[in-house]
Amino acid sequence: MLVNTRLVRIEWGDCDPCGIIYYPRYFAFFDASTSALIERALGMTKRDYLKAFDFTGHPLVDAHCRFLIPTRFGDDVTIETTVTQFHRSSFDVRHHLRKGATLAVEGLETRVWVHGHPASGRMKAVPMPQEVIRRFSS
Amino acid sequence: MLVNTRLVRIEWGDCDPCGIIYYPRYFAFFDASTSALIERALGMTKRDYLKAFDFTGHPLVDAHCRFLIPTRFGDDVTIETTVTQFHRSSFDVRHHLRKGATLAVEGLETRVWVHGHPASGRMKAVPMPQEVIRRFSS
Amino acid sequence: MLVNTRLVRIEWGDCDPCGIIYYPRYFAFFDASTSALIERALGMTKRDYLKAFDFTGHPLVDAHCRFLIPTRFGDDVTIETTVTQFHRSSFDVRHHLRKGATLAVEGLETRVWVHGHPASGRMKAVPMPQEVIRRFSS
Amino acid sequence: MLVNTRLVRIEWGDCDPCGIIYYPRYFAFFDASTSALIERALGMTKRDYLKAFDFTGHPLVDAHCRFLIPTRFGDDVTIETTVTQFHRSSFDVRHHLRKGATLAVEGLETRVWVHGHPASGRMKAVPMPQEVIRRFSS
Repeated sequence: MLVNTRLVRIEWGDCDPCGIIYYPRYFAFFDASTSALIERALGMTKRDYLKAFDFTGHPLVDAHCRFLIPTRFGDDVTIETTVTQFHRSSFDVRHHLRKGATLAVEGLETRVWVHGHPASGRMKAVPMPQEVIRRFSS
Repeated sequence: MLVNTRLVRIEWGDCDPCGIIYYPRYFAFFDASTSALIERALGMTKRDYLKAFDFTGHPLVDAHCRFLIPTRFGDDVTIETTVTQFHRSSFDVRHHLRKGATLAVEGLETRVWVHGHPASGRMKAVPMPQEVIRRFSS
Repeated sequence: MLVNTRLVRIEWGDCDPCGIIYYPRYFAFFDASTSALIERALGMTKRDYLKAFDFTGHPLVDAHCRFLIPTRFGDDVTIETTVTQFHRSSFDVRHHLRKGATLAVEGLETRVWVHGHPASGRMKAVPMPQEVIRRFSS
Repeated sequence: MLVNTRLVRIEWGDCDPCGIIYYPRYFAFFDASTSALIERALGMTKRDYLKAFDFTGHPLVDAHCRFLIPTRFGDDVTIETTVTQFHRSSFDVRHHLRKGATLAVEGLETRVWVHGHPASGRMKAVPMPQEVIRRFSS
């Protein structure tokens, strides 16, 4: 399964009065990491892949995060992201955030492939295109 | 067990290009909700309770969130927060975020009571004071 | 001119490793404060006023902020917001954020009334409805 | 005067329901850009330079931003940052954020070199070390 790795600097503004990361920032990192993985698999930006496959997005239905060791401002961490399972209209993603060789945070999420504008209240899950799924196995 | 309920407005700036909430914001809401619960239990602000019980904070080791229905800017939601279990040096928190009567998001977290400054790399879990635990049972 | 005042709690997650507010948060507070002022003037939520007056939004062209004294987590501050001037298709807003009676931050912004979707690159300034402007003079 | 340029991707989570950037994010980008400039001038990370020069930070007293054209998620922008003037215990910074060759945002800020912990209410401006100032002229 395709894996995308990116480097992220923990910034001063990501950190709380204890000097460690304010944990909601991890979820922002992971959201961008999932998009980066799909961009890499499909060879186009998120703006383009939403148009190319004519869908609204891939909102989360479930997010789970284990915080093993804290990160601090100035830390350069790597985030390794992969799809662990495709379902009919949803998929599971796993993020491993490492500080050096040490696993600092593990994030697991389930996302749904949706059509329709959520603001209208008519967002609904649709089957993921096989063409999309195939691109992750390379 | 003590329950704290607070009202939160989903703001324009909390929302993404789909017009629904950018989910890392939920974790920011929940972090403030946990502090608000402890503030209510102990009858003092977070700044004061960190001093009064001479500890560094209550960082997370685990966060789990289920997103049942989306929320949009302009939505007024309630967040109901309670401790579901106290362990020796950690505690489990549950957040129910409701849109009207409907449960929109459930957040579960495990937090640790710590001493020492995390930036020094010498943060360690310590037993929670019984005096603190007692205040949640009222 | 109509003035809207709201109370904001500076949260732990709004603060940086120095324990004082991470200043980009002020702009998030001010953005919500401008919307709250317009909501009050027009008697409807932002979601509704965008529809009622059939426009896309009121993006900024200029923001200026003076930081007089720092705020810290646990501080309850008031934000007093008013329009200082209406132009043809733009308006100037002033925010006074106070800690007790002391002015802590002054924010000044100029916003434009726009039609068209910005993502399309065809967003353009349009004259503000007189009906809207009138509602601020009460 | 030393100039630091960095590349920033505007992410989905940086954008609002109009699909354009939520402007407080610019200030977060600029804060990290100022730190990156100082890191480059001094040849060490922020965590290290705060220790090496034994000061608390460089909080803002003034921020001014002009938004010339909007940026959208998926945009790769460059941020060019330089000090325009050193004063006795403060300095002025200018950020030019460009989308391709076009200036999209100009940010100007004045920051103070401070000692003492702000949370204690005893933060005070001190003269900037000449050794620091010299490093920017290379």
